[in-house]
Amino acid sequence: MADPPEGPVRRLLVRDLAQLATPAGTGAPLRGGALAEVEVVEDAYVLVGGETIERVGRMRDLAPIAGDVEEVDGRGLSAIPGLVDCHTHPAFAGDRANEFALRAAGATYEELLAAGGGILSTTRATRAAGAEVLTAIVARHRDAMLEHGTTTFEGKSGYGLDRDTELAQLEAVRSAGGIPTWLGAHAVPSEHADADAYVDWAVDEVLPHAAKVAVAADVFVERGTFDAEQARRYLLACRAAGLALRLHGDQLSEIGAVPLAVELGARSVDHLEATGRGGIAALAASNVVGVLLPIAALYLARPMPPARELVDAGAAIALATDFNPGSAFCESLPVVCTLACTQLGLSPEAALIACTVNAAHVVGFDDRGRLARGQRADLVLLAAPDWRHLAYHLAGDVVHTVIQAGRVVVSRA
Amino acid sequence: MADPPEGPVRRLLVRDLAQLATPAGTGAPLRGGALAEVEVVEDAYVLVGGETIERVGRMRDLAPIAGDVEEVDGRGLSAIPGLVDCHTHPAFAGDRANEFALRAAGATYEELLAAGGGILSTTRATRAAGAEVLTAIVARHRDAMLEHGTTTFEGKSGYGLDRDTELAQLEAVRSAGGIPTWLGAHAVPSEHADADAYVDWAVDEVLPHAAKVAVAADVFVERGTFDAEQARRYLLACRAAGLALRLHGDQLSEIGAVPLAVELGARSVDHLEATGRGGIAALAASNVVGVLLPIAALYLARPMPPARELVDAGAAIALATDFNPGSAFCESLPVVCTLACTQLGLSPEAALIACTVNAAHVVGFDDRGRLARGQRADLVLLAAPDWRHLAYHLAGDVVHTVIQAGRVVVSRA
Repeated sequence: MADPPEGPVRRLLVRDLAQLATPAGTGAPLRGGALAEVEVVEDAYVLVGGETIERVGRMRDLAPIAGDVEEVDGRGLSAIPGLVDCHTHPAFAGDRANEFALRAAGATYEELLAAGGGILSTTRATRAAGAEVLTAIVARHRDAMLEHGTTTFEGKSGYGLDRDTELAQLEAVRSAGGIPTWLGAHAVPSEHADADAYVDWAVDEVLPHAAKVAVAADVFVERGTFDAEQARRYLLACRAAGLALRLHGDQLSEIGAVPLAVELGARSVDHLEATGRGGIAALAASNVVGVLLPIAALYLARPMPPARELVDAGAAIALATDFNPGSAFCESLPVVCTLACTQLGLSPEAALIACTVNAAHVVGFDDRGRLARGQRADLVLLAAPDWRHLAYHLAGDVVHTVIQAGRVVVSRA
Repeated sequence: MADPPEGPVRRLLVRDLAQLATPAGTGAPLRGGALAEVEVVEDAYVLVGGETIERVGRMRDLAPIAGDVEEVDGRGLSAIPGLVDCHTHPAFAGDRANEFALRAAGATYEELLAAGGGILSTTRATRAAGAEVLTAIVARHRDAMLEHGTTTFEGKSGYGLDRDTELAQLEAVRSAGGIPTWLGAHAVPSEHADADAYVDWAVDEVLPHAAKVAVAADVFVERGTFDAEQARRYLLACRAAGLALRLHGDQLSEIGAVPLAVELGARSVDHLEATGRGGIAALAASNVVGVLLPIAALYLARPMPPARELVDAGAAIALATDFNPGSAFCESLPVVCTLACTQLGLSPEAALIACTVNAAHVVGFDDRGRLARGQRADLVLLAAPDWRHLAYHLAGDVVHTVIQAGRVVVSRA
């Protein structure tokens, strides 16, 4: 989004930080003991050149900098890498506040679906919205994410379920600077006879176009939606078209999403609230990342995913908001971190790694997620001298400044 | 806090509101079926004169207003009464981020207490802070509460546990516009031999001074802290000194707080995570309000309080943040409402009533908690045309404008 610099490179020095915290090491995804390894530097600086981090260190080791440097005062603040939200559904119109109220009164997700609510009610509103409105909506949610420290977000389609609206969703995500994922197999719209017929149609009619915009494909593997065989057919076609693979799996029931993800070498399988021992072991033995979405479990009053068991078994995990109007109307990764530390048995360190470097891996980036030389200059300055306030201060005004690709995009100074 | 008006009364018209929602009826606390009764008016206005609501109604029924009127544009917004947080601990220094991290790694509350963490670690920092710093700290948290729509807050002492610091805490709450509660019996500081000796000392040495500032007294009834007999002695002395009574009860174990609250005619018993059938029935048959604190249950990964059972039995309930550095570092009543609707089985209507009119009753006010003629002009305008976004949009930027006693104190216009 930024214009290429015309003169000498722009330099930005974030100085006198009370603390800086970054996932240690190199490479991704981190798993096992590496999920505890956050490097903390007290009295720190970050020097940015253009869109990239040039140097990170202690103030007392800061060498003189030649030329003009813009400065950001980090006193009393702590810095972490820009957050990466690797699972969101931001391209929808309407809301589901009424469904939220019905569920609070006791209706189950499956009952709401059967009553004509759920995903297909959002599909009706999204189809009616038009491309221009969808673009504005995604930009608005992107801004809310930025305010919560998210400098990279993935955004799925899946509320159009017709060709033009699916493509409009993907374009809306791309134009907001997000990473588009084609969730062509999210639900079966009523104009198709069944899930098999819909998959055939989507692969023939939408995939060739979607593959030009999206970087990944995703499918909702769930009883009553798409079974593992339908998902395999859809994902194989998407892989052949050059897309990385993601799966929604084991949210309500275990019907084969994890084995399928491992078989196909998917980037991730997301949700896992219902995953048992076999699935945990299979994930741990694979390169598939388990993406945990505690806000969805909270909204649906379901058991939390077995995060501790996954980590202990050696699986790689990431955390995301699952931002969507039905089961996770929340753009905030800091809230996800609070839930990770209180409900998933994860340390603040594991939570930070899971929504920075590991999430970046899920989205396909190795240039972000750490505060280190050569990484994209995405930083969040927290309004506390201890970076763990990220998770500790629930819904607190903890995001003070956000720097994205070297530019200050949010500032509460 | 406002200066008395010198000329004609200041008038403020909030006009063209998409929606207005207010607890129906009169009196408090509401219980049973009345907890579902929220009156919703579409295309509404609120007319304020000075610090008081003069009229509420539909735009089409708005009669001409004589004299000067300041206007607030309510298009696209919904209005609810200013929120009332009836249980907070805002007068502390330091933080407990490290304890939060230890707990995330598996330590229990009781283990952290035994390791010298917990309340007494905050007591050390709070005693060292001094009155001036405490006053600034409470004002800062008051501002954060206001940003989340809280126009009335109760604030407890209980981190001083010596005379001067307890009084400094109460004064800090009062000077921030809060309602002070003397939580003299929160923990036993090490300079006293045991809980009995401490209660004797506190009643003799602190109560006579605290009773001049506080409006209520509170006690932490819990295994290892104060038992029911010690609590009775403390509360009887406080009642004799003119204070209303509150109790922290049944947070970890049922050791008699509910029967004691009923026996003494307390305003409330707060927490109730461990309350069983007997306690629910006793509360339902009484005028004691059960104050539910779901953020504390979330932070401590404990079972949620039996909210649905309390409501079904006919008990009066309120909701509060329990804002404190150890187990609920969150100033946001909207977050409490999300937890109420997703974890406590409460409808958005019950949640709204529980943190407005019922909470006002717990704090001792009958002049706020409803949008109705004669009530104090405390309003929150939400950035959504459906007031249920209060609970639906977790950590969303949902509070648009806050009006307190007729004055706009927060505005994101």
